[in-house]
Amino acid sequence: MGSIDVSAAGAGQANKVPGIEQLATWSAALRYDDVPVSVLEKTKDFFLDWYACALGGRSHPSVQAITAFAMDVGRLGGEHGSELLHRPGVKISSAFAALVNGAASHVVEQDDLHNSSMVHPATVVFPAALAVAQEVGASSKAFLTACVAGYDVACRVGEFLGPSHYAKFHSTATAGVFGAAAATAQLLQLDAAQTLSALGSAGTQAAGLWQFLLDATHAKQVHTAKACFDGVFSAYVARAGLLGPRDILQGASGMAASMVPAEPQPAMLVAGLGETFSVTTSSFKWHASCRHTHASVDALLDIMREHSLVMDDLAAVVVQTYRSAVDILARSEAAETVHQSKFSMGFVLAVAAKYGRATVLDFTEAALGDPDLRAFQKRVRMEVDDAIEAAFPEKWQARVLVTTKAGTTYGAFMPIAKGDPGRHLTRDELEAKALRIAEYAGVIDMQTVKDNIVRAWHLEDESNMGQFACS
Amino acid sequence: MGSIDVSAAGAGQANKVPGIEQLATWSAALRYDDVPVSVLEKTKDFFLDWYACALGGRSHPSVQAITAFAMDVGRLGGEHGSELLHRPGVKISSAFAALVNGAASHVVEQDDLHNSSMVHPATVVFPAALAVAQEVGASSKAFLTACVAGYDVACRVGEFLGPSHYAKFHSTATAGVFGAAAATAQLLQLDAAQTLSALGSAGTQAAGLWQFLLDATHAKQVHTAKACFDGVFSAYVARAGLLGPRDILQGASGMAASMVPAEPQPAMLVAGLGETFSVTTSSFKWHASCRHTHASVDALLDIMREHSLVMDDLAAVVVQTYRSAVDILARSEAAETVHQSKFSMGFVLAVAAKYGRATVLDFTEAALGDPDLRAFQKRVRMEVDDAIEAAFPEKWQARVLVTTKAGTTYGAFMPIAKGDPGRHLTRDELEAKALRIAEYAGVIDMQTVKDNIVRAWHLEDESNMGQFACS
Repeated sequence: MGSIDVSAAGAGQANKVPGIEQLATWSAALRYDDVPVSVLEKTKDFFLDWYACALGGRSHPSVQAITAFAMDVGRLGGEHGSELLHRPGVKISSAFAALVNGAASHVVEQDDLHNSSMVHPATVVFPAALAVAQEVGASSKAFLTACVAGYDVACRVGEFLGPSHYAKFHSTATAGVFGAAAATAQLLQLDAAQTLSALGSAGTQAAGLWQFLLDATHAKQVHTAKACFDGVFSAYVARAGLLGPRDILQGASGMAASMVPAEPQPAMLVAGLGETFSVTTSSFKWHASCRHTHASVDALLDIMREHSLVMDDLAAVVVQTYRSAVDILARSEAAETVHQSKFSMGFVLAVAAKYGRATVLDFTEAALGDPDLRAFQKRVRMEVDDAIEAAFPEKWQARVLVTTKAGTTYGAFMPIAKGDPGRHLTRDELEAKALRIAEYAGVIDMQTVKDNIVRAWHLEDESNMGQFACS
Repeated sequence: MGSIDVSAAGAGQANKVPGIEQLATWSAALRYDDVPVSVLEKTKDFFLDWYACALGGRSHPSVQAITAFAMDVGRLGGEHGSELLHRPGVKISSAFAALVNGAASHVVEQDDLHNSSMVHPATVVFPAALAVAQEVGASSKAFLTACVAGYDVACRVGEFLGPSHYAKFHSTATAGVFGAAAATAQLLQLDAAQTLSALGSAGTQAAGLWQFLLDATHAKQVHTAKACFDGVFSAYVARAGLLGPRDILQGASGMAASMVPAEPQPAMLVAGLGETFSVTTSSFKWHASCRHTHASVDALLDIMREHSLVMDDLAAVVVQTYRSAVDILARSEAAETVHQSKFSMGFVLAVAAKYGRATVLDFTEAALGDPDLRAFQKRVRMEVDDAIEAAFPEKWQARVLVTTKAGTTYGAFMPIAKGDPGRHLTRDELEAKALRIAEYAGVIDMQTVKDNIVRAWHLEDESNMGQFACS
């Protein structure tokens, strides 16, 4: 599978073939042997990282509610059903396994984030791909290939939609549904035209608003769950002959015209396709907070370490960062719930300042009532920095300025947050993170988690893609 | 259930309680005895009209594809399952019956249209309500009540979103999902808070773009199918404890902020609630074409009748109408497929001019190749009329100016198209229309259709809501 030259393929304006069609054609044709080994290895890293996140969300009321719905209306499968990761022994039709596992994957805010697209690809690609792979009995190599395709499709569509879309819509859902559809299409062995239909149907279902951030309700889980379900749906009905719109992104009544206030970026749909894989440009989350806080946490911790400061030394913190961070985080600034507290810059920096880290174990109901954290939270202020804004969304950077009670000011600029490309997590770190999340989630059967870590590192040798569930 | 006074309840601005919350509270509390008999009778009319439309779409490839998906992944039901109307004997979980019947209902373009909201309510309310009523064993009175609530919720949300939303999004889906959720919530006996959660989850899934009109693909069926499914999903997960955003319409990151370019109309959410029922203000479709063509067809037929003109007498036709009609119809003006031909003003008027009617039997593959129709189509031109535009969307009017080959010009203004409130279809006309659609759809078991017509007129006396399917 050669790369597609963007200069020849055009920015979607000069060329008659829409970018989405080129992307569908590439996705349908991708084969395991086309994918460089380094990309496959990275896919396994993200798979393990996602698997832990999917376990992490198992107890959330939204996941329980969506599980109840799935069990109520989904076909319970026999030999060829798909697993609900938190219900070992239960097999259900793929669309519902994707729905439930997709709901669970994004709860603990520890899944990956692809910077330039602002999409969390793992939470929409892996649940769909795993469920469908289990249902159709696909090989582990076919699974990995489908995930690589799903990552590129979701992230490239997210890049196409860009920050102005993200300001209105939850791109992980609206671009993610394309990734779920592409991964499913791969596993169903759809041809290019069918894959394009699947992507068209996916796009006309794309939905997800940020309103839930304002009242701490459960729509985030609905968004990832439904992106998975709708993507699976789109590919299955495409296989059965349903025609999806052919140019759902750039068409006159498509997503760009209706859901992208600023200019979309059609070149991103095909630039370096087959050469630069989106799997390699996604970021792991080390901290358990919103990804928009990570560079700031790293910078704050660097300052405190370097100057041997403790929480009580700090009188004021100014975070200079990009506009999307300021806009999104402002919606949860009050931090009234555990989930909102991960989206409050003040609260997150308070946690980091107090504990020297910000893991899933640190955002709790008890923390919400901690007067130390609440006092520190009020000392944090955000502002937009022009240079950092100009580098976004390619780079998610921050500068932190700390003024001590003694009156000294220290600053640190964080060009690459821990977990970003260039500072990806090691497999040791990924294992530690996975076990910490499983522990947090109350997983009883930790041996299965440990076994699955080993399986992940050798995934291409797996004879079947089943039995990942644990109690 | 008394009415809600809009002056007291406010337009959603002055009052702290969002319009959607008032609507949810009203919907949850609505009881059969609150609904005037005239409204119940009208609901039965729309139910029969919808039932015929749902039969009409049975053979469409998109309906077949969605049926295949449903049979593949949905739980097949025993005693308490829900019917696929085109597969007698098959019972499936409610969400999938709603999905499939919702896909089928909008195919023949004969379902009702609520003018001021630009929503086709039947195609999203009845499939969900019937499927859920069957699954939970609800009474026919509970079913009728749920449909009345679903109509008001869908249409009022559509009115809130308004024409600027409709220009971008397929409102039947984006407002319709609220109606499906409200009807389901009624049948599941959700309380006001749960109903509000259901509507919040519905709104954050709202999707549907017009791109399919440009390439004659099948997304219209995806939209109605998924509005039904997503609405059912929203109510079921609300019952199971999933919290939906509380102010999905007017919240700072809700639908108005993200999906309504012009000013939304919050007063419409509650104006006259409980006094003016949306069921009474919906319009039946007599012609089988896009509703935007109906006033023009009526006007043209009036002119031709009055002046004893035949198709060949006409040299030029100018249609003066509202902007949405011109915008939507311009997308299908080429009329390359049967579906598109119903959305081409030129082609629709050609059919009317040739046959003196525009029924489902007149839009065929053969008609697409008819040189008479193609020649006439080119003689039709649309333009926006300011006065008619000002009356839209409350009124869907048109003026037609015909110039004969002899050089005479005749004009007719159509203030109320046949089927509109004030010119609703009679039960005789509804029966004739239903039988014509069933015949068109190749229904074999016409006796069941005839029996179901009788059942519809006495629906409140039905002991169960099952056995509407026919072969």
